[in-house]
Amino acid sequence: MNPVPTLEWTGDCLRLIDQRLLPGTVTFIDCRDTETLACAIRTLAVRGAPAIGLAAAYGAVLAAIETPPGSGFKEGCRKLMGVLAATRPTAVNLFHCLALQERVLSAALNRATAIVGLLENARRLHEEDLAASEAIGRHGAALLPPACTLLTHCNAGGLATGGLGTALAVVYEAHSRGILREVYADETRPLLQGARLTAWEMVRAGIPVTVIPDSAAASLLASGRVNAVIVGADRIALNGDTANKIGTFSVALAAREAGVPFYVAAPLSTFDFATADGSGIVIENRSREEVACLGDTVTLASGASVWNPAFDVTPAGLITGIICESGVLSSPAEMLRTQVDSGP
Amino acid sequence: MNPVPTLEWTGDCLRLIDQRLLPGTVTFIDCRDTETLACAIRTLAVRGAPAIGLAAAYGAVLAAIETPPGSGFKEGCRKLMGVLAATRPTAVNLFHCLALQERVLSAALNRATAIVGLLENARRLHEEDLAASEAIGRHGAALLPPACTLLTHCNAGGLATGGLGTALAVVYEAHSRGILREVYADETRPLLQGARLTAWEMVRAGIPVTVIPDSAAASLLASGRVNAVIVGADRIALNGDTANKIGTFSVALAAREAGVPFYVAAPLSTFDFATADGSGIVIENRSREEVACLGDTVTLASGASVWNPAFDVTPAGLITGIICESGVLSSPAEMLRTQVDSGP
Repeated sequence: MNPVPTLEWTGDCLRLIDQRLLPGTVTFIDCRDTETLACAIRTLAVRGAPAIGLAAAYGAVLAAIETPPGSGFKEGCRKLMGVLAATRPTAVNLFHCLALQERVLSAALNRATAIVGLLENARRLHEEDLAASEAIGRHGAALLPPACTLLTHCNAGGLATGGLGTALAVVYEAHSRGILREVYADETRPLLQGARLTAWEMVRAGIPVTVIPDSAAASLLASGRVNAVIVGADRIALNGDTANKIGTFSVALAAREAGVPFYVAAPLSTFDFATADGSGIVIENRSREEVACLGDTVTLASGASVWNPAFDVTPAGLITGIICESGVLSSPAEMLRTQVDSGP
Repeated sequence: MNPVPTLEWTGDCLRLIDQRLLPGTVTFIDCRDTETLACAIRTLAVRGAPAIGLAAAYGAVLAAIETPPGSGFKEGCRKLMGVLAATRPTAVNLFHCLALQERVLSAALNRATAIVGLLENARRLHEEDLAASEAIGRHGAALLPPACTLLTHCNAGGLATGGLGTALAVVYEAHSRGILREVYADETRPLLQGARLTAWEMVRAGIPVTVIPDSAAASLLASGRVNAVIVGADRIALNGDTANKIGTFSVALAAREAGVPFYVAAPLSTFDFATADGSGIVIENRSREEVACLGDTVTLASGASVWNPAFDVTPAGLITGIICESGVLSSPAEMLRTQVDSGP
């Protein structure tokens, strides 16, 4: 479990841990308006698909507080929620949570009931996220052998969710069951979420962690030292194609080559039933500076271009199983079929 | 062609461009003794398998100059050459060049003829390296389609060799033939040889270059934008298994998945006929600091371990062809068979 809250409603603002400054500095950002929150999402002060979704759900409360009463209240509020929706394109949880808040807003009788209803719903989504993480942890740990070694990519931990994680929820549960030997974490260029965030969470939880350059994952897997790969997800298409942090696809290819199972751990809020396959997922491109600089040092010849996609799509065929709060599935489509089969 | 000499005998010392400071600063290191050179090799001021080999060949001259005359001359000289041999374990060119210099030393009548003979032999190896690069460029360019886009990993350019490169010799030749559209370069963590060195060479040669995080190579290849991958090599085992900069194996897996040809470009001095396959190649592990720091900023939680192998082994089965000065081969073993077939 993440030792400090990833995001927390304090009574009058949304308090976020500033993930850009970890592991060196633990500081918080108090978001009292949607613009501050939108900036925090865009600049990755808060990141991770479930955490972005929850931040936006609380952001809808800020939008309602910010919007003056009157006949234009709901439209004004929607406009601010639209600013939050435009921050990042790939993680579907953002749109999912804002759509749920839109329903609350639509049904509200007035500004006061809207604020109360939006806050209650945000808190409910936050509790559901924690419960989903716990269930994911249990379902995932049940798949693992004793004394197992895991590899993960990016940070799908407490910092990426309401507090417990997706891939790392499985790690925490395996650790508490005494079946975890150690964790390898890809450093995850360009922003080093593995080195900065996952390693920080692991050290704080007392779990042995070894960070590797992303490019060393294939060698590590080929060495036979890893029993399973577990990663998170930003969006899972109907057929199981999964968008996640750039580099996930490479790790999946290396896992298949080495005969190591490759699991995606993600809550149902990450499932995108409206997108048939990965080709329909919008991939965010981020700035040149993320790749061209190391701290204050420019490491790239001027005149060279940069391509910096934030995510890639791992084809469903490379994924051993998708671990969600309902169990282990091959795809969102399988869940739909199961629901139809068990229906009236 | 590399715009400034990678390494140059000035008359009384070996002058190296300090590759650690590129692209920001172009400065040189004058090696007047083997310890200065050994330090330059260990710290990657000079790097790249063929360049390390040539540096060591000139280093043997420094060893002879450094060793006082007398009955212990050859043994003293050998001891200093042994210091050079112990700098890095993976690139076979280092041992190859030192073995050739050992023959010159053994045959020398006295210290003076040793110095002259070692310098002549180092110059000859340097010229052979340039000639090999030119031949590799021609053989490689003949494999490429018009308006082609290439992906490379690390730096196998002029900076990694006597001045022209291996993988980048193919790039330079394709550019001069007018068949090159653009080059993608993996940034190559942890030391960013792709971003710092390959991009610098490309910009200076007027070749359009786009740098990507290593982890984006699989997405790039899957997109269909790349016609071929070309990388260098640090050691090629008899069966064609190839040690090269960490991450090469991942790129090869992604190339196979995307149906893109994957070429290794390397001179015959990189062939290790004495090692049956990749399992016999020693892989150098480098320091925690290379991964744990960005400039002066520590990016890793204290308490986290680091695994930082400098190279990986790409299985021969993933390699479309090995481009050397003799042509395009499937493995060093194939060359042996050809020589036997065409023998008396």
